[in-house]
Amino acid sequence: MTQQNEDLNLNELIGQMTLDEKIAQLIQLAVPFYEGAQESGLITGPMASLGIDEATVHNSGSVLGMAGAQEVINVQRTHLGHNRHGIPLLMMADIVHGFKTIFPVPLAIGCSWDLELAERSAEIAAKEASVSGVHVTYAPMVDLVRDPRWGRVVESTGEDPYLNAEFGRAFVRGFQGEDLASDKDRVAACVKHFAAYGAAEAGRDYNTVDLSDRQMREFYLPAYKAALDEGCEMVMTSFNTIDGIPATGNAKLMRKLLREEWGFDGILISDWGAVKELIAHGIAADESEAALKAIKAGVDIEMMTSCYVKHLSELVEQGEVDEALIDEAVLRILTLKKKLGLFDNPYRAADPEREREIVFCDAHRRTARELAVKSAVLLKNEGTLPLGREGNIALIGPFATSGDVLGPWSWTGSKEEAVKLADGVRSKLAGSSAKLLVAEGCDIETATAAQWQAALAAAQAADTVVLALGEHSDMSGEAGCRADIRLPEIQLELIRQIKSLGKPITIVLFNGRPLDLHGVIEEADAILEAWYPGSEAGNAVADLLFGDANPSGRLTMSFPYSVGQVPVYYNAYNTGRPQGAPDAQVRYVSQYLDIPNEPLLPFGFGLGYSEFEYGTARLSSELMTADKPIEVTVTVRNKGSVEGTETVQLYVRDLSGEVVRPVKELKAFRKVSLQPGESREISFALEEKQLRYYHSDLTHASDAGDFIAYVGSSSKTNEALPFRLAK
Amino acid sequence: MTQQNEDLNLNELIGQMTLDEKIAQLIQLAVPFYEGAQESGLITGPMASLGIDEATVHNSGSVLGMAGAQEVINVQRTHLGHNRHGIPLLMMADIVHGFKTIFPVPLAIGCSWDLELAERSAEIAAKEASVSGVHVTYAPMVDLVRDPRWGRVVESTGEDPYLNAEFGRAFVRGFQGEDLASDKDRVAACVKHFAAYGAAEAGRDYNTVDLSDRQMREFYLPAYKAALDEGCEMVMTSFNTIDGIPATGNAKLMRKLLREEWGFDGILISDWGAVKELIAHGIAADESEAALKAIKAGVDIEMMTSCYVKHLSELVEQGEVDEALIDEAVLRILTLKKKLGLFDNPYRAADPEREREIVFCDAHRRTARELAVKSAVLLKNEGTLPLGREGNIALIGPFATSGDVLGPWSWTGSKEEAVKLADGVRSKLAGSSAKLLVAEGCDIETATAAQWQAALAAAQAADTVVLALGEHSDMSGEAGCRADIRLPEIQLELIRQIKSLGKPITIVLFNGRPLDLHGVIEEADAILEAWYPGSEAGNAVADLLFGDANPSGRLTMSFPYSVGQVPVYYNAYNTGRPQGAPDAQVRYVSQYLDIPNEPLLPFGFGLGYSEFEYGTARLSSELMTADKPIEVTVTVRNKGSVEGTETVQLYVRDLSGEVVRPVKELKAFRKVSLQPGESREISFALEEKQLRYYHSDLTHASDAGDFIAYVGSSSKTNEALPFRLAK
Repeated sequence: MTQQNEDLNLNELIGQMTLDEKIAQLIQLAVPFYEGAQESGLITGPMASLGIDEATVHNSGSVLGMAGAQEVINVQRTHLGHNRHGIPLLMMADIVHGFKTIFPVPLAIGCSWDLELAERSAEIAAKEASVSGVHVTYAPMVDLVRDPRWGRVVESTGEDPYLNAEFGRAFVRGFQGEDLASDKDRVAACVKHFAAYGAAEAGRDYNTVDLSDRQMREFYLPAYKAALDEGCEMVMTSFNTIDGIPATGNAKLMRKLLREEWGFDGILISDWGAVKELIAHGIAADESEAALKAIKAGVDIEMMTSCYVKHLSELVEQGEVDEALIDEAVLRILTLKKKLGLFDNPYRAADPEREREIVFCDAHRRTARELAVKSAVLLKNEGTLPLGREGNIALIGPFATSGDVLGPWSWTGSKEEAVKLADGVRSKLAGSSAKLLVAEGCDIETATAAQWQAALAAAQAADTVVLALGEHSDMSGEAGCRADIRLPEIQLELIRQIKSLGKPITIVLFNGRPLDLHGVIEEADAILEAWYPGSEAGNAVADLLFGDANPSGRLTMSFPYSVGQVPVYYNAYNTGRPQGAPDAQVRYVSQYLDIPNEPLLPFGFGLGYSEFEYGTARLSSELMTADKPIEVTVTVRNKGSVEGTETVQLYVRDLSGEVVRPVKELKAFRKVSLQPGESREISFALEEKQLRYYHSDLTHASDAGDFIAYVGSSSKTNEALPFRLAK
Repeated sequence: MTQQNEDLNLNELIGQMTLDEKIAQLIQLAVPFYEGAQESGLITGPMASLGIDEATVHNSGSVLGMAGAQEVINVQRTHLGHNRHGIPLLMMADIVHGFKTIFPVPLAIGCSWDLELAERSAEIAAKEASVSGVHVTYAPMVDLVRDPRWGRVVESTGEDPYLNAEFGRAFVRGFQGEDLASDKDRVAACVKHFAAYGAAEAGRDYNTVDLSDRQMREFYLPAYKAALDEGCEMVMTSFNTIDGIPATGNAKLMRKLLREEWGFDGILISDWGAVKELIAHGIAADESEAALKAIKAGVDIEMMTSCYVKHLSELVEQGEVDEALIDEAVLRILTLKKKLGLFDNPYRAADPEREREIVFCDAHRRTARELAVKSAVLLKNEGTLPLGREGNIALIGPFATSGDVLGPWSWTGSKEEAVKLADGVRSKLAGSSAKLLVAEGCDIETATAAQWQAALAAAQAADTVVLALGEHSDMSGEAGCRADIRLPEIQLELIRQIKSLGKPITIVLFNGRPLDLHGVIEEADAILEAWYPGSEAGNAVADLLFGDANPSGRLTMSFPYSVGQVPVYYNAYNTGRPQGAPDAQVRYVSQYLDIPNEPLLPFGFGLGYSEFEYGTARLSSELMTADKPIEVTVTVRNKGSVEGTETVQLYVRDLSGEVVRPVKELKAFRKVSLQPGESREISFALEEKQLRYYHSDLTHASDAGDFIAYVGSSSKTNEALPFRLAK
């Protein structure tokens, strides 16, 4: 029987459930466990050792990684036939940057600085996922990132807490919409990975995180909090330890901060296997202790291990776990099912016919193309770009014809259907006199003699060369960590050999992290950082290469000078001996002997085909009070000959705090499109609450004193606008 | 007038001092400020801007960097003529690893694992310094280090909290002896840099430190605490922030932890300029606020800035600072002067005649040679070493004839008088048939064609080649940070070219940090890490090269695989997805795609000319209780043909804690010298208190549960001896 959604009393329902039935709601299993799925019964590897019986599957609460309208309908229908309470399954999946229509990777979306388009991308992903039967996505990922060795920087929007928070909000709005109950084209969002997963030591995935509480609140927590303030339904635990205790068993973090202090009452789900991993971490002696620590910490759903179903029942019997804790977890799960309307319509928006219409439709792909265009960052241009539609154009490199342009976490996307760069360029040249010569030159890490010769021949015959280089998508993403963050050596050699021919070289990069660009940036006449642009990769990059679109992306993560400099990020502290201070000594300042302190390319940086001129910025007053915000105003003019979009950035420095303060903090930004010669006055209101920070006692407040505002085109802007906050 | 030491009532004396006189005791100025010094009046650079008047100098409490018996006598005598209370100056200096007789750098001393000899080296340093008029040394430095980019790793004994604590104790005993009052051949010690200076972000000196309180107590604080438990008289602040507050203005760290919790009542001195640096850090708006925060934090002496003398007086008048705080600081300073007997004899052991006898005497140099021999670590040996005294031996490289073998912080030592390697080898070959060919080949970072050719010619003519390579001493030490930790490229090229000649190659390294040895370790037949061995460098290295001594050093800091792997250290946490676990997946474990997780050379590792065989280790019981320690016993046999010294190491792993626990922790070690064929049974008592650790609430306790003991020749030893702690 199916329960009636509106009238359903969930506590009453829980009262009718046995303890085992309740505990089964807390496990999340993958698709093969379910009758009606194509992969049904294909339980191998670690799944086989879970020791899950049929009753547990029939009473389980949610499914991992299921999508496809017909399959979801089949599984749900079968399941309801087996479940005596008629409790439907929640279908969850990783819909991170698109469902079938794949958008750029999140790090690229961050570089768009376009919150509306980011929201729209999540809305489209939700619509495609929902019609395919998905109820919950494990997104957004809002981990702050500073170490490009870590593969998962590709899933983040970067190194700035304010920007990450804004994107976190935008993604949640896009996924969830105004009202999940009535808007069936939306899915519930699950912010991850709570908390501070991005601070993994030495940039090695899953590694230890150790931070002061203050540092965590100042930099790492704001984006999670913002997503929750936006109504995000779920939270996922992170794999790392926080101050010695893995997040998944960390009661201080989960029960105390997330639940009590922040008042989060939604579902907290473990990441894959993270409950059982408490044993490997060494804070649980066995699966029973792992279950105990996780449920006490507040984890509702155990993903893909079976500590709860095997041990919670006896822990309740032994009095170690209060059954109320389990009821609470079940209630949260049932509450989301009810909110999604699943008791009324367990299939929700799943609809094979509408699925065929909506998924990967032209309208969605147009948005993907637009976002890909806006996410790419022009890192260098000595005038080679935009390319003309004339002469011989050699397109060389492993990404010339590769479909590996979707990036990690695009399992529902199709590399085959992605627009390859050669195809995008070919469309662009249709009808022109230009001739396109395409050659791979090498694979990502190796080359054959034939590939190599063909590439040199193409370059030799060309008037201009476009090199499409990068990392294959497995070189970033989960467990995709690299100690050497340069392009693979074979590609650097390809650059050198092509360079020796003396042709203009444009390099397009497809990759998932800030790279050490030595060996690239000196050799290239122009560099376009395309990241993984998604389904419309080739079209979007061609738009930019040929000037049909003007590059407008700005970096949201610093490109280090070399791996020996990491972590390097713009919002760092000054130290007591800053390099370059008026009284700085030659040697005894904070620096390296062999490389600069500055990253190769800073946060906020990006070029375009226009040039923007900033007038002298001014403040409405040099005195701010709690009641009296000040206004920062600057005039920006497009000096170039084509329309372009500038991202005007406002930074603030607090010159003296109770604790040390960053040398710059992004406080606001504005994207402004200007015609050639057009100028516009941009104003930012800046108020006291934007000057608040976490003090040593963790209070969040501002202090009276001296500040500097900076406004400009990147974090390097240094025209100082001093002001004072009075109290 | 000079006060009588024994009967002196310091509080009474303070009662007679004006506020300005008291505040002047708190400043520490460099030698040029003082009449009677050779450099007197040479006040330039930042010193000129201190705004110090004559009265302040006459009432100042201590001098920075003064040594030399006659000069100290002159300055002290003149000073007492100017000071109406007859308060003598404290003469302080950086006597870090020897005074004139320079011992190996501390990182090298750590590798000796020889606490007695370390203590003896400090005793000799104290004796030479004391007779030269020094009263206090800014040592030992006990900062735990994990990042070889940081230049000051050379001043630390390494990455292990237990070993650092033991060395910290040994150095304090050596410097201070049993009784500073009666033993005039000793000096007061000053443990530094409090706290956690070694955790500078990205290995850049003076950079931000951010740690959880627990991590700090577990790893970073034990060595400072041990030095204080041993009676260390003084503490120096560190340059870094701790949880957002620079150490020098950090009341939680200094007033609360150091003073209240640990009960430290000695002098706390700022590092050079660190009080004024609170402004650059951004926690003080001006010098007055800097003075306020430092005195409130508990800093007694302000080194080389003048915030105290310029502002404390008015801060007292304004009621911002209680005069009692100043009295307290003055009392601590006067107390040390009294303890050192300076009110009776302000010259203490300063004696120009005895100075000539003692300083750099043969007996001291013999100890320096012994310690240098024991500090060197043989990293590789394919049978090339020891060298025979026959044939043509080419000694090539910038360190063949360099006196830059003392390392950082050896300002009182003489590079000219240090034994160069060529001289050491030449003495060794005297009377033999061997012929020594010496050539520089290159300087540290450059080469001339003539150098290069001469080196190739020497190598061509040789039967065996010894390459003496490394970093010049300014490439480590304070502000000596490198983002690239390989040997300079010219030296790597020298290795390649010599290698192509096909001769056996022994490489001797002179350097101050763990290096990335790629380009070295594959090419060499043998590598001896000599570090900076000190005054007897050439003799000590020659002893080892020719087998008159058997290498016995063991690394106390991991040599990383590459800079992209740092920080890497043996006592890390396991993570939830350890590589190599029984159920580990291929991809989804904590690892890099491109390099191993393991360092190139682990903590505890070192070779020698003997080989040691371990029997099966055993435990006296598999059950430990608080009252019943267990014993770990193993038999070690010298399988080689020469006498040798093994360092038997005992590690423990706590399999499940309240917080995560390291995969191994050093708990004890024993150095054992064995004749060829000799075997010895080694036993370690292991007791409950060695299993205590800091819990999440910062209590220090052990938990009942399962443990593993490991005994062996390095931190890679993996023969597991499980035991259980019952409560």
